Amino acid sequence: MVHKLILVRHGQSEWNEKNLFTGWVDVRLSALGEEEAKKAGKMLKESGLKPDVLYTSKLSRAIQTADIALDHADRLWIDVKRDWRLNERHYGALQGKDKASTLEQYGPVQFKTWRRSFDVPPPAIEDSSEFSQAHDERYADIPADVIPKTESLKLVIDRLLPYWDSDISKDLKSGKTVMITAHGNSLRALVKTLDNISDDDIAELNIPTAIPLVYELDDDLKPIKPAYYLDPEAAAAGAAAVAAQGAKK
Amino acid sequence: MVHKLILVRHGQSEWNEKNLFTGWVDVRLSALGEEEAKKAGKMLKESGLKPDVLYTSKLSRAIQTADIALDHADRLWIDVKRDWRLNERHYGALQGKDKASTLEQYGPVQFKTWRRSFDVPPPAIEDSSEFSQAHDERYADIPADVIPKTESLKLVIDRLLPYWDSDISKDLKSGKTVMITAHGNSLRALVKTLDNISDDDIAELNIPTAIPLVYELDDDLKPIKPAYYLDPEAAAAGAAAVAAQGAKK
Repeated sequence: MVHKLILVRHGQSEWNEKNLFTGWVDVRLSALGEEEAKKAGKMLKESGLKPDVLYTSKLSRAIQTADIALDHADRLWIDVKRDWRLNERHYGALQGKDKASTLEQYGPVQFKTWRRSFDVPPPAIEDSSEFSQAHDERYADIPADVIPKTESLKLVIDRLLPYWDSDISKDLKSGKTVMITAHGNSLRALVKTLDNISDDDIAELNIPTAIPLVYELDDDLKPIKPAYYLDPEAAAAGAAAVAAQGAKK
Repeated sequence: MVHKLILVRHGQSEWNEKNLFTGWVDVRLSALGEEEAKKAGKMLKESGLKPDVLYTSKLSRAIQTADIALDHADRLWIDVKRDWRLNERHYGALQGKDKASTLEQYGPVQFKTWRRSFDVPPPAIEDSSEFSQAHDERYADIPADVIPKTESLKLVIDRLLPYWDSDISKDLKSGKTVMITAHGNSLRALVKTLDNISDDDIAELNIPTAIPLVYELDDDLKPIKPAYYLDPEAAAAGAAAVAAQGAKK
């Protein structure tokens, strides 16, 4: 049996537009992001893929992307599961900071280390910061010492994989087509695992916004062929744009 | 402990606008319906009520209403459960028919019997009808002989209450504030049960669109005071408009 998994990175957010580090700060899609989500829905519809269940993070930009895309794919009615373990990487004390200023202040080596190193998290955020989620009601069910104050990609993998095992993989194995709308780094964490990408090579992997990435998996949930974007040309352009972030003024 | 339940009837749909019997046909919100849903979200936000979990039917107009309202209440991230047992009453062979023509063809007595009698369902719909849901993918998990071909309000109660008992009431009893976005008749079924309204009196109860109706319940889920609309004046006007349906040409 072929198990189908569809990954969708959220469309442009208001803070992507402003070139700020976002992480767990709950910002909305920009107008462009909403347009991207519509296109993703149309691609899904044209592809004939039929997601049976939606997984999202607890962040509005991923939820909006899913709602808009599924609406345009005529599948608003599918089951939905939201979980913080699909959230974007927590960007620690960088949350709310301008990417270009950060690059200028700390230089390209430190900047790239924070953005793309596998296991070096940025400095932790203070609970008193306006950009902290220590007191965010949506995480009230999570033990306080489990809510991150900063994360590396490695730490994202550490919190995401148990949820993959407990929930997502079960739906896939039961024959459901699973759609996940999430974030640049939570999706990189998944792709790294599914494609067995090394800790070094993952630094160069950029996932474009709002272009469905489709995995066809065997019964052990190993890819039976390379994953593919529903719009490969747009995906290549989008990945290049993500890679260039921070350089913008 | 006071348990809070918020009922929201979906905003105007494209077929409400055209004055057609809808039932299980999956039509979308009209532009007015989207506006109504926004207002419902703003009312929720101003009220200080904080739904923890959303229940919706499997029909797009209820899902759209919830998504828009929760977005405007800054609570897109809450858990979601969708179930066909919250669907609108199945209107049988009347689905897709014009209300005014049906009134003219069958006369006011038969018309009101179909719309408001407690236990007389309209004629069953044929599986071959374009307005049948016999082959609708979203109900593929339901045994074929359980998918209704027509329903009275009584039959709606019969299918809804087991779900109330198995799922909704458990969330309420666990202390969660529950929001249900559903339909004129599935919500009448709930209100009849919660307020212990007689089979005769329920005929005169009309629930306005997209104005949150709030129940405060005791530990046995009995109302501790009369339920109230977040905008009582708009609710009275809305209920009168619903009652007048069919008279429109």
